[in-house]
Amino acid sequence: MIKKILIANRGEIAVRIARACAEMGVRSVAVHSEADRFALHVKRADEAHSLGDDPLSGYLNPRKLVNLAVETGCDALHPGYGFLSENAELARICAARGITFIGPSAEVIARMGDKTEARKAMLAAGVPCTPGSAGNLANLDEALADAKRIGYPVMLKATSGGGGRGIRRCDNAEELKHNFPRVISEASKAFGSAEVFLEKCIVGPKHIEVQILADRFGNCVHLFERDCSIQRRNQKLIEIAPSPQLTEAQREKVGELAVRAAKAVGYQNAGTVEFLLQGDELYFMEMNTRVQVEHTISEEITGIDIVREQIRIASGLPLSVKQEDIRHRGFALQFRINAEDPKNNFLPSFGKVTRYYAPGGPGVRTDTAIYTGYNIPPYYDSMCLKLIVWALTWEEALNRGLRALDDMRLQGVRTTAPYYQEILRNADFRSGQFDTRFVESHPELTEYSIKRNPNHLAIAIATAIAAHAGL
Amino acid sequence: MIKKILIANRGEIAVRIARACAEMGVRSVAVHSEADRFALHVKRADEAHSLGDDPLSGYLNPRKLVNLAVETGCDALHPGYGFLSENAELARICAARGITFIGPSAEVIARMGDKTEARKAMLAAGVPCTPGSAGNLANLDEALADAKRIGYPVMLKATSGGGGRGIRRCDNAEELKHNFPRVISEASKAFGSAEVFLEKCIVGPKHIEVQILADRFGNCVHLFERDCSIQRRNQKLIEIAPSPQLTEAQREKVGELAVRAAKAVGYQNAGTVEFLLQGDELYFMEMNTRVQVEHTISEEITGIDIVREQIRIASGLPLSVKQEDIRHRGFALQFRINAEDPKNNFLPSFGKVTRYYAPGGPGVRTDTAIYTGYNIPPYYDSMCLKLIVWALTWEEALNRGLRALDDMRLQGVRTTAPYYQEILRNADFRSGQFDTRFVESHPELTEYSIKRNPNHLAIAIATAIAAHAGL
Repeated sequence: MIKKILIANRGEIAVRIARACAEMGVRSVAVHSEADRFALHVKRADEAHSLGDDPLSGYLNPRKLVNLAVETGCDALHPGYGFLSENAELARICAARGITFIGPSAEVIARMGDKTEARKAMLAAGVPCTPGSAGNLANLDEALADAKRIGYPVMLKATSGGGGRGIRRCDNAEELKHNFPRVISEASKAFGSAEVFLEKCIVGPKHIEVQILADRFGNCVHLFERDCSIQRRNQKLIEIAPSPQLTEAQREKVGELAVRAAKAVGYQNAGTVEFLLQGDELYFMEMNTRVQVEHTISEEITGIDIVREQIRIASGLPLSVKQEDIRHRGFALQFRINAEDPKNNFLPSFGKVTRYYAPGGPGVRTDTAIYTGYNIPPYYDSMCLKLIVWALTWEEALNRGLRALDDMRLQGVRTTAPYYQEILRNADFRSGQFDTRFVESHPELTEYSIKRNPNHLAIAIATAIAAHAGL
Repeated sequence: MIKKILIANRGEIAVRIARACAEMGVRSVAVHSEADRFALHVKRADEAHSLGDDPLSGYLNPRKLVNLAVETGCDALHPGYGFLSENAELARICAARGITFIGPSAEVIARMGDKTEARKAMLAAGVPCTPGSAGNLANLDEALADAKRIGYPVMLKATSGGGGRGIRRCDNAEELKHNFPRVISEASKAFGSAEVFLEKCIVGPKHIEVQILADRFGNCVHLFERDCSIQRRNQKLIEIAPSPQLTEAQREKVGELAVRAAKAVGYQNAGTVEFLLQGDELYFMEMNTRVQVEHTISEEITGIDIVREQIRIASGLPLSVKQEDIRHRGFALQFRINAEDPKNNFLPSFGKVTRYYAPGGPGVRTDTAIYTGYNIPPYYDSMCLKLIVWALTWEEALNRGLRALDDMRLQGVRTTAPYYQEILRNADFRSGQFDTRFVESHPELTEYSIKRNPNHLAIAIATAIAAHAGL
C-alpha cells in the first residue's frame, strides 16, 4: 500500500487529494509557489514544500517534482488535473525514480494524448469516431482534400490539444485556408507540437463522457456518464450526472463503449472517455487520462470515492467494486464557480475574498481552497470553488442548486454564481433537453440585474455589528 | 399546496426548514427573540419577526406564534424539534385558526406524549414493550408492588417526560423510595404533570429508532433505523444510520414494528419510533411526534428529504416514495457539535465564534446556524453544529468523520469535536459493537491533550497576515 504521496498540484484538487490521503491513513506532501504560500492545500497536507518564487514553473517542472517526492520520502505522486497531469514525461520520470505515478502508464498517456493515435486505437476497437483524416495532415492541400471528402463543416484540431483548446471550426474551404496556419501556430505554442488533423464537425452535439476505473488485474468498470453540454467556448461550466437526456439504452451503450475503449488501450487507474452525442449517434472525442474537475458528480450518484480508488489502484489493489454493484441514484450537478464577471464577457476577477460562507444542508457539497481573507492569485485558473448538489429527482436537484447558490456567500470577487442561477431558472435547461450550443444561444442569461440580495447586506451588517460590539 | 410557513423555532433546524421551503417555492417566516436578532435563521427565511425581549417565552408561547402565523399570511406552521414541537396545544390552536400544523394531529401528539397511554396503544397493536406498570402510579406503595412484580432494576419515569429527562433508575426498594418523590417533583416542574410510571430497566441496551413517514392516504413507510446508543446522560452525541449492529433480519423486524406502531395510532407526517434492543429482544420505548435532530442521517442513506416530505404530507400530498423503492446505501454518522467542554464535565461554553470554516469534500454535510463573528447565546441548547458524514462502508465513514472533524475550524468556544475524534479512534466503537453504556464506560476518552493542531495556528496566522497586508 502507498504510504506517502506528493501532491503535484494546487488549489481545490490538491485539497481533495489530501483529504483522500487523510481518510486512508496515507501521508501527504503539498507543494506550492510563493504566490500559494497561504493557499489552503498547503495547510491540508501533512507537509508542504516551496517550489520557488515563480508562480508557474515549479508546478510545471516534472524533474523538480519527482526529486522532491524522492527527497521527502514519498512512494507515490498524484498529478491532479491540469498542469502535468497528462504529461507522459512526468509518468516516465516517476517510473525511473521508483515513484508510483497515480495514473495510467506513460505509454497510455502518450498514446491517448496524441489525438490521431487515439482515433486509430478506437477505430480498431470498434469504438465509433467522427469521420476524419486518417492521421496528421501533411499540408493544407491534404487538409482541403480531406475536408472535401468528409464534408463541411469540419473541425481543425491540434493533435496534442485538449481541454477545449487548439480547435477551430471551418465551414468552407476559405475558412480552412484561413485557420490552417493559425491552429498550427497555436498548437506549437500551447502544446509544443505543430501536428493537426481534421474531423467532421458534429453540429449541436451533446457532450457525454463516462468515468471509468481500471485496475491492474484487468477489471474495468464505468461509473455512468456525465453530461457536460453546458459549456462556453469549450470550457465546461455546469456538469450533470447522470445525463437527463439519455435513455437507459443509450446509458448502457455509452458505458459499454467507454469500458471497451479503456480496455483496448490497456488502461489503468481513473480516466474519462468523452463522446459527442448527436441524435442516437455516439462519437468518440478523446480520453482524459487523469481525474477530472467533474469527478465529484459521479461520486455523488454512485457513492464511490474516485480519488480513493485511484490510490488503491496505484497501490496494486483490485477495484473495491464490481460493475453489477455500481448503481446510480438521483441527479448531481456541479457548478464551477469561477472568479469571472459574466456581465463583462467573463473577465477574470481575481483579488481578495472578503467573505466566504459555505452553503450547507442536505445534498450540498463544496470542494474549494478559498477562505475568508484568501487572496485569489492572478496566475492560475479562475475556478475558485466547486459547488455540487444532489437530489433524488432532476427537479429537486435544480431547486437545490438554486437554493445552495443563494445560501453561499462569496464576496470580494465577481463570480459566475448569479449566472448559474439564471441558467437554473431557464425553461430550456430545466426541460433537461440542451446541447453544447446552450450557452451561446442564451446570451440573455448574463443580463441579470446585480441587485444585491437584501439578505447579503443584512448579514454583512449583522456580522460587522457583532464583531465590533464584541457581542 | 402550502404556500407560506411560519417556522416556530430557531437555530439550525429553523435554517433547515427555511432551506426546504426555498427549494419547494414555499415562502418562509422566521421568528426570533432579541437575543437571536443576528441569528442565521433570521436571514435564511423570507421574512423575520421579533418575539420580544425575553429569550425563551416567545418561542414557548403557542398563541403568540399562531397569531403571528395568521398575521403574516401563513397557511402553515412548522414546529421543528424541542420547544413546542410536541405540544398538543399548539397543534390544537393551529387547527382552530385554520393554520396547518406540520406534524401529526393534536390527539396523536397527546396520546404518544403520555407514556402510559402510548404503552397501552403499543401493547394493543402487538408492539413489544418492556414489562412495566399498567398505567400511572397512584402512590409509592403501588410503585413498590409493581417493582417487586417486574423485578429490579426498574426505571421510574415521568409520564409526560421525554428527551431523556424525568427518568431515574432504581436498583432496589430503597432507591425507589428515595427517587419516587424526586421524579414526581421534577416531572411537575419540567412537564407540568406529576404522573409517573415504572418500567423494567433493560441493562446495557442499544438505542435503535426508526424514522417513519405517513401520509393522509394510509401510506406509511420507514426509512430504516438509526443507532443512537452513543449517549451521555440520555443525551445523544453521535447517531448512526443504519446501525452497524443489526442483522438484516433485525433491521426488517424493527422497521416493520415501527410502521405497525405508527399505523396503530393513525399517525400522519414524520415521526420516530424508539426502541431498546437487548440481545435479540426489541422493546418499544417512545414515539417522537416531530422531526428529530438526527433525521439527517436517514436522509443521507436513503436520499429522501424528510422535511420536504413533511411539508408535502401536510399539504395533503401522498408520500413521494413507496416502501419497496426506499433503499439504504452506505453509512452515515452525525456528530452533535456542542459548545461544551468535555474535559470540564461538558460544561457549556457559550460565547463568540471567532472563526468558523465548514469542512467540505466528499460525503460531508453541515447543518448549522453559526458563522464567524456569531455570538452563541447562553439561553438555548448548546448544540451549535451538526456534522454529518457518509461513506459506502462503515470503516470509510469512520475515517471520513475523523477527517471532517479535523477539517472543520470552529474557534472561540470549546466544543465536543475533539472528544468525538477520540471516540472515532476507539477500538470498541470502530468494532461497531457498543451499547448505551459506551460513554460512561470510556471515561478515558475525555483525556485527550488539547495540543493545538499546528495547522490551526498556521492558517490563523496566514489569514491574519493576508488580511492586514491587504494581499
